[in-house]
Amino acid sequence: MDVPFTGAVFLGMSVDGFIARPDGDLSWLTAGTEGGPPDDGAGGDFGFAAFVAGVDALLMGRSTYEFLAPMAQWPYQGKPVHVLSTTLPPGADDRITVHPSLGHAVAALGAAGCRRVYVDGGRTVHTLLAAGLVGELTLSRVPVLIGAGLTPFGPLPADVLLEHERTEAFPGGMVQTTYRVRREG
Amino acid sequence: MDVPFTGAVFLGMSVDGFIARPDGDLSWLTAGTEGGPPDDGAGGDFGFAAFVAGVDALLMGRSTYEFLAPMAQWPYQGKPVHVLSTTLPPGADDRITVHPSLGHAVAALGAAGCRRVYVDGGRTVHTLLAAGLVGELTLSRVPVLIGAGLTPFGPLPADVLLEHERTEAFPGGMVQTTYRVRREG
Repeated sequence: MDVPFTGAVFLGMSVDGFIARPDGDLSWLTAGTEGGPPDDGAGGDFGFAAFVAGVDALLMGRSTYEFLAPMAQWPYQGKPVHVLSTTLPPGADDRITVHPSLGHAVAALGAAGCRRVYVDGGRTVHTLLAAGLVGELTLSRVPVLIGAGLTPFGPLPADVLLEHERTEAFPGGMVQTTYRVRREG
Repeated sequence: MDVPFTGAVFLGMSVDGFIARPDGDLSWLTAGTEGGPPDDGAGGDFGFAAFVAGVDALLMGRSTYEFLAPMAQWPYQGKPVHVLSTTLPPGADDRITVHPSLGHAVAALGAAGCRRVYVDGGRTVHTLLAAGLVGELTLSRVPVLIGAGLTPFGPLPADVLLEHERTEAFPGGMVQTTYRVRREG
């Protein structure tokens, strides 16, 4: 299948597949379960900075943008940030480009020559998975079941076959797996 | 917390957390994604027989029992099989003991001296997780997203904190992780 770009996903989640509680709370994700924040064993970030360094742009939904917007620092190393929203005005924030539909965003990212796009936020990841626009998934599962919340998973038009690339278990109990989406024929 | 026995879970699931399609279909689980059934690299069973050897009994719901009942061989090495059901008659099948409620089942398993019970089936696993009766989870994720289906996950009265015990990635892409449930205090 010819795709305009490769969507790359890098999500922290619970073992039961939630990326946030229903109200958006993420404290369970970073609190750790063994007396401190998750630890990759080397004082590091579980590969997040290297992941961001390897993308050309970001694509997220309005909810994720509004969660991140008040933060003092964007963790995106100056990469262009594209936001899907039918309600945000185009000039709402100089740091972002607003697109009213996925089609508009895909066209803009393609026109900008983006080859690899960090897709973030549960609903946006789900939308791009369903549209066949995700090529790679890195899922970092923290050792807890939270029972309910936001998730990138949900109905798909067809199974998404994955190829396991690597798995690492970190001190503190996070298990991080990277998959590539298999493209048939 | 004092628990009458340790519930042990051993489930195959998709990366998005489903153990069967909505109609119960499991073919995606065993079909593999690289030209054959899942392969543990040694012609083996991913530890299933050893897991069963280590339990005193099984506990499952009626749906799982009815799925397994027609099979020529029970994969349970002669262990006692307890089934939760309000509709199955007590003498429906000589191979099983029917309990009308979780309370009855817990009492019977305790009275029989069971220390470690294999809990199977999505709804029963969820019920026992919510009741604080699961002590160990082995989750084997096959590399596919199926979008919808039966799942052991769902609302819980409180977070279930886990301790990572081990993770192994098998040839063919299955990632198997074993967690222990953390008991506070």
